[in-house]
Amino acid sequence: MSTHILSLSRRIRQTPFSNHVSKAGAKAYTVYNHMLLPTVFKSLEEDYFHLKTAVQIWDVSVERQIEISGLDSARLIQTMTPRDLSNISTKKCFYMPLVNDKGGMLNDPVLLMLEPNKYWLSIADSDVLYWISGLASALKLNVTITEANIYPLAVQGPSATRLMCNIFGEKIKKLPFFGASKFKFGKKEILISRSGYSKQLGFEIYVDGIDMAPTIWDALFEAGSNLDVRAGCPNLIERIEGGLLSYGNDMTIENSPYECGLEKFCDLTRVKYCIGQDALEAEIKMGIKQIIRYIEIDGPPVSSCLVPWPVYKDNKNIGQVTSAAFSPSSKTNVSIGMIDTDFCDEGRNVTVIVNDTKRTAIVHEKPFA
Amino acid sequence: MSTHILSLSRRIRQTPFSNHVSKAGAKAYTVYNHMLLPTVFKSLEEDYFHLKTAVQIWDVSVERQIEISGLDSARLIQTMTPRDLSNISTKKCFYMPLVNDKGGMLNDPVLLMLEPNKYWLSIADSDVLYWISGLASALKLNVTITEANIYPLAVQGPSATRLMCNIFGEKIKKLPFFGASKFKFGKKEILISRSGYSKQLGFEIYVDGIDMAPTIWDALFEAGSNLDVRAGCPNLIERIEGGLLSYGNDMTIENSPYECGLEKFCDLTRVKYCIGQDALEAEIKMGIKQIIRYIEIDGPPVSSCLVPWPVYKDNKNIGQVTSAAFSPSSKTNVSIGMIDTDFCDEGRNVTVIVNDTKRTAIVHEKPFA
Repeated sequence: MSTHILSLSRRIRQTPFSNHVSKAGAKAYTVYNHMLLPTVFKSLEEDYFHLKTAVQIWDVSVERQIEISGLDSARLIQTMTPRDLSNISTKKCFYMPLVNDKGGMLNDPVLLMLEPNKYWLSIADSDVLYWISGLASALKLNVTITEANIYPLAVQGPSATRLMCNIFGEKIKKLPFFGASKFKFGKKEILISRSGYSKQLGFEIYVDGIDMAPTIWDALFEAGSNLDVRAGCPNLIERIEGGLLSYGNDMTIENSPYECGLEKFCDLTRVKYCIGQDALEAEIKMGIKQIIRYIEIDGPPVSSCLVPWPVYKDNKNIGQVTSAAFSPSSKTNVSIGMIDTDFCDEGRNVTVIVNDTKRTAIVHEKPFA
Repeated sequence: MSTHILSLSRRIRQTPFSNHVSKAGAKAYTVYNHMLLPTVFKSLEEDYFHLKTAVQIWDVSVERQIEISGLDSARLIQTMTPRDLSNISTKKCFYMPLVNDKGGMLNDPVLLMLEPNKYWLSIADSDVLYWISGLASALKLNVTITEANIYPLAVQGPSATRLMCNIFGEKIKKLPFFGASKFKFGKKEILISRSGYSKQLGFEIYVDGIDMAPTIWDALFEAGSNLDVRAGCPNLIERIEGGLLSYGNDMTIENSPYECGLEKFCDLTRVKYCIGQDALEAEIKMGIKQIIRYIEIDGPPVSSCLVPWPVYKDNKNIGQVTSAAFSPSSKTNVSIGMIDTDFCDEGRNVTVIVNDTKRTAIVHEKPFA
């Protein structure tokens, strides 16, 4: 596959950090929620090693915050997910599958409660606002649904805490994993969570409006000047090794949360009603047909997976790989895919067809790192 | 703005024609409905002149067809648009604004009725499936909503009819503008409409499934071999000159159909009920605040409009330009934008701020071509 040049237009939205990201040397981009997301700075491999040893600032403005407010907001949100949200608080992030009537995944956002009757869904790549607006409009609910003017920056890597302490003080150390709290930044308060799309230490800063953007970008680089801070982005190798799924790549509307390995976020006995409940209950009764697995692929380094690579056992098609990369740490190809549950056990030897070539491969139940 | 390389992944979907398009020399792409759409072959200018003098085959698979079927489908579709659909038939395409409760544009699809209780919405760049599914789920309607395995090809340019006659026979000449009918292709029947995202003569072929794709691609190039047929794509210059709006560029969820100049598709007196009706009626009462206009911008050729360019009259901000290109025919910069209705009359002299530089400009009520 040759190089693809991306034509820009207003429809492919810039972020408040796009100029900074470009100056910092972003070499490639993807489009995510109709917006630019950098994918590579120096190289996938160099970015990977740096992410695992230092600290990076990521422009993840594409994690659009869908704001749901109003008297019916809590009820509406619980209706949209099989996850039990009864213990929700402003202090915690909640990863929640969003499913349709058939139990198909529509998105896998992180829910933040800002105050009673005011929430953000930090979304993956699909127009969640359309789904929620359709529900709310038809049910004539007392809610307001907007895309908030919030542009998240992620601070990721082992030195993330030291960098964040330099700006927000030592108390940021007390934020537990998936905890959220407000911190002083100049005269403003800013929401920060301990989260991010890597398996390294990390935080996400919910930058409030474009005016604040350049100030906080500069402050982060100044605070990290002695920590080898760099501009970065979600790293394909690191996220595959860490088993972080990507909506649109590893799961689509065709997949249930069970297939995506998200069983622990499906509390059907505790949730009184949610959309897709019948379909999910029927799936459990019938048995889950395929499930996310981590697949080690032999042979020379693979290129990116642009269309699903079929997985075979003997002559039977038993699944597909949807994300893949060569890991420079383990010197092997790491990948994520879905495998028939009859063949999904640890250590199973299978064949993956990579661009018309057979490769031997091993199925793993747990991520690589 | 430097060149942006697009990173590919399964999430940025290939089309059944992507290999053909790449081999035909596509130089750049955009992402549209999570899928690749070529934007340039030789150059914007060369593509423009060729489109206006010969015939091009466009891979517009990104025009995803949202299929709505079932007993409640007609009622649901009428609920979603202020356009009166009472005279719908399988012989005609219907351009229809899709609006939310606030009267904001969600998309501007073309509706095709395949048979009673079975429709396609040929959509612009937003997840319309999510909006419709939300409505149908909440209202518990008897409908099925899917993205069909349809991959449209457009045949555009003055020689389009001659090319199409070579494959589908002389009777295709009888298809009126925005007419639709089925035609024989080998042993199959295939839906064709006289439509397309250019102001040239043109057709759209709703290629049914990936198996048919290479056959029909080759047939089209063979049939056009003596007509200087080339692979092409929607052309920025031609579509701006022709006044064809682009959802996400020239109109967004913030705009009403009236602001988009789509008044003739709003039949509020004839439509008994549609979503957004109250908001649209209130807007008419209060007066429409801004409206789509075609703006001629003086000075040297402009680059693409990546963020809205503000429009001023004296020191008052009276609008913005959202799409722009240099027209090699008229040797001037052509653009589309929205202008305050107080300043929107033909011939009005205004100032457009193009990348921090003031340019004199003239407002036009009608498109350039």
